[in-house]
Amino acid sequence: MYTQQLVFVAAALSAPILSSANCMYGTSLFPRAEGATVEVSNFGYVGLQGPLNWAALSAENSACATSKVQSPINIDSTIQLAQEAPKMVIKDVEAAEFENLGTTVEVICNGTTTFGGKDFSLQQFHFHTPSEHRVAEEYFPLEIHMVHEAADGSGALVVIALTFQLSEDGATTELLSAVTENLAKIATPGTVTETGPLKFAEVINHVQTTPLFQYTGSLTTPPCAEGLTFLVTEKPLPLNVKTYNEIKSVVKFNSRYTQNSPGQENLIAVGASALAGAGGAVAGEDARNGTAAAGNATVVVKPKPSGGAAASTSAKGTATSKTAAAATGNAEVKVEGEHHCILGSCREVTKAKRFRRRR
Amino acid sequence: MYTQQLVFVAAALSAPILSSANCMYGTSLFPRAEGATVEVSNFGYVGLQGPLNWAALSAENSACATSKVQSPINIDSTIQLAQEAPKMVIKDVEAAEFENLGTTVEVICNGTTTFGGKDFSLQQFHFHTPSEHRVAEEYFPLEIHMVHEAADGSGALVVIALTFQLSEDGATTELLSAVTENLAKIATPGTVTETGPLKFAEVINHVQTTPLFQYTGSLTTPPCAEGLTFLVTEKPLPLNVKTYNEIKSVVKFNSRYTQNSPGQENLIAVGASALAGAGGAVAGEDARNGTAAAGNATVVVKPKPSGGAAASTSAKGTATSKTAAAATGNAEVKVEGEHHCILGSCREVTKAKRFRRRR
Repeated sequence: MYTQQLVFVAAALSAPILSSANCMYGTSLFPRAEGATVEVSNFGYVGLQGPLNWAALSAENSACATSKVQSPINIDSTIQLAQEAPKMVIKDVEAAEFENLGTTVEVICNGTTTFGGKDFSLQQFHFHTPSEHRVAEEYFPLEIHMVHEAADGSGALVVIALTFQLSEDGATTELLSAVTENLAKIATPGTVTETGPLKFAEVINHVQTTPLFQYTGSLTTPPCAEGLTFLVTEKPLPLNVKTYNEIKSVVKFNSRYTQNSPGQENLIAVGASALAGAGGAVAGEDARNGTAAAGNATVVVKPKPSGGAAASTSAKGTATSKTAAAATGNAEVKVEGEHHCILGSCREVTKAKRFRRRR
Repeated sequence: MYTQQLVFVAAALSAPILSSANCMYGTSLFPRAEGATVEVSNFGYVGLQGPLNWAALSAENSACATSKVQSPINIDSTIQLAQEAPKMVIKDVEAAEFENLGTTVEVICNGTTTFGGKDFSLQQFHFHTPSEHRVAEEYFPLEIHMVHEAADGSGALVVIALTFQLSEDGATTELLSAVTENLAKIATPGTVTETGPLKFAEVINHVQTTPLFQYTGSLTTPPCAEGLTFLVTEKPLPLNVKTYNEIKSVVKFNSRYTQNSPGQENLIAVGASALAGAGGAVAGEDARNGTAAAGNATVVVKPKPSGGAAASTSAKGTATSKTAAAATGNAEVKVEGEHHCILGSCREVTKAKRFRRRR
C-alpha cells in the first residue's frame, strides 16, 4: 500500500498551511513590485557552504551527514515505477511569483495533486542544473522539483521531479520558456519578479501518462529531512539551448552529489571511514564531542612516506594493475614492462605497437 | 618563475615514456582491429565506487581524502590568468585510437606543447560531462582534458582543460564532431575504436589566443595526485546538442564534486568533522587504525531525539530563520507567524497578501 510507504516528514503543523493560496498572487491582477527581496539560502554548493559541510552549517541539518535515506540517487533497476498516475489539477495563470533564493530559482504556485488516495497541495516548483537524479548513471541538463504537501496537515511531502533533455531540433517545453521569460530580472540572489503566463497542460499530461520512478528519499537541500516521496519522470521533457543557457547562467551549479542507494550508509560516513583508512582520523575528542565547526575542520592525518620513484619497470608480460602505481601517493605516470599507464589508464604496449608508434 | 611553480608529480621515470609515439598509431595506415578491449577503471561516480570513497578503493588513493590541493575547483577571483600562451604543435591525423575506459572516453594522441620554458608531450585527451571546473560557480556541459607530460622525464604534468558551451545556432567545434564520429562503437566500457580524422588548428588557436586560468591542482581521478598544472580556458568552445547528447549517453556522469580552494582542508576531512558535529563519530580504533574498507564503512551515529512538532507559530512579525526550522532533523515545513517556510525557503506573508491569496 502506498500509504504505508509514506513517511511523514512533519508530525503535525501547529498552524494551517496556506493551502488556499493560488497562483493569482503575484499576477497582473495583483501585481507585486519588482525589486523586492526574498531571503537567500545560507547553504551553497562550493567549499564550506557546500554539500559535504551542510551538517555543520546548522544543528538541524544533521540528517545531511547521517541519514541513510538521502536524495538524489542514481536510479537503477532496484527502483520501481509508480503503480498509479498522480492526478494533477493546476490552473493556468497570467503570472506567478518568481524568486531567486541564491541556491535556486523558485515559482510560487499552487494546485492539487491526488496520489495514493491523498490530496497534496502544490506549494512551489524550483530548478536544479544539472539534474540531481540520474537514470542508469546518466544525468540530464535540468531537473524541476514540484513540491507538494499533504492537504490533511500531516506534513507528508511528494516531490514530482521533471527531467529535461536538450532537443536537437530546438523543441522545448512551453511552460519552461514562459517561466523563464523574466529570468534576467532576478539574476541577483534575493530578488523577485513575475513569470510569464503559465500553461500547465503539457507538463501535467506528461506526468500523468508516462512512467514515473517512485522511491522514498529526502530533501536534496538542508535540512536533508528524510521521508519524501519522489516521483521522477522516466522520460525527459524537451528543452532548447537558449532556455538552458539562461537558466544555467542564473542558477549556476546546484546539484547535490549523488547519494548512496536508499538504506545504505550515508556517503559522508563512508568518506570519513575512507579518510581514516587513508591515514587520517577525525581528531580525537573535539570531533567526537561535536565541537568541530565549519571552517575549523580538525583532522589529523598521519604523515606518509614521501619520495620514491614514480615509475617502475617489470619484466615483459607482467600484469600491470592500475592500483599498483603511485606508491608515494603522488605519482601517476609509469611504464611497467609492456604496459603504458598514465592517469590511471593502462594500455598494453606490444613490441609491434612500439615499433609502429616510433615510426 | 613558472618553473618554480611546477611541482613534479613523479620524481623520476625509470624507463623512457613513449614520447616518440604519434597519432599515426591506430590510423588507417596502421589500423587496429575494432572490438579489442582496454582496461576499465576500478573507480566510478556512484555509491561506494564514487568520489567520497576513492581513498578506500586503494591505498595509493589516499590523496583523494587528505590532500589540500585537489581538483577540480571553482575558479574565483583568486585564480590568476597564465602569463604566457602555451605553444602547441599537434599534427593532424586520419584517425586515432579511441577508448572507453568506463569512466571516460579517451583519445590516444601525441603532440608537443611548450610552456614555461619546458617541452611537454601530449599523451591523450579525455572527456568529462558535465564540466569538472566551474567559473564563478557556473559549470559547462563538457570539459576536455588534454594531458601533457614533461619531455625531460621529470614527470611534471600539464593539463589543458577545454570548456564547451552549447551554441544556440548549432555551431560546434569541428574537432569534437570528428572525434565522436565513431563514439557509438565504443558504447561499452572496455572497448576501443578509431576516431574520425582529427584537425587541431581550431582548438590550438583557441588555447593560444584566449585567456587561460592557471593553478596548481591534482588529478581529478584516483590516485588524485597533487602537483599538476591546470590551464583552463576562460572562454568556452562551441558545442552542438547532437554531439553533447551522444557524449553524455556514453560517458554518463563523470564529474568529481568541486573541491575546496587550493590550500584549504580536503572536503572529506571537512565532511568528517561535520559528521562528528552532527552526532556521529568515526568508529573507534578500527577506523583510526586504517582498517575500514570499502563497503564496510563503520560509523557510529549517536541516537537523536525523535518526534516533536515540525512547525511552530510565533507572534506576527517575529523574524523567521530558516535554520530555526526542523528541530527534530526531519521537518521542513512550517508556518511561523507571518512567514511561510517550505524546503528551507521562507517568504514573508503579510495580511494583505494572505487576503489576496485566499480570494
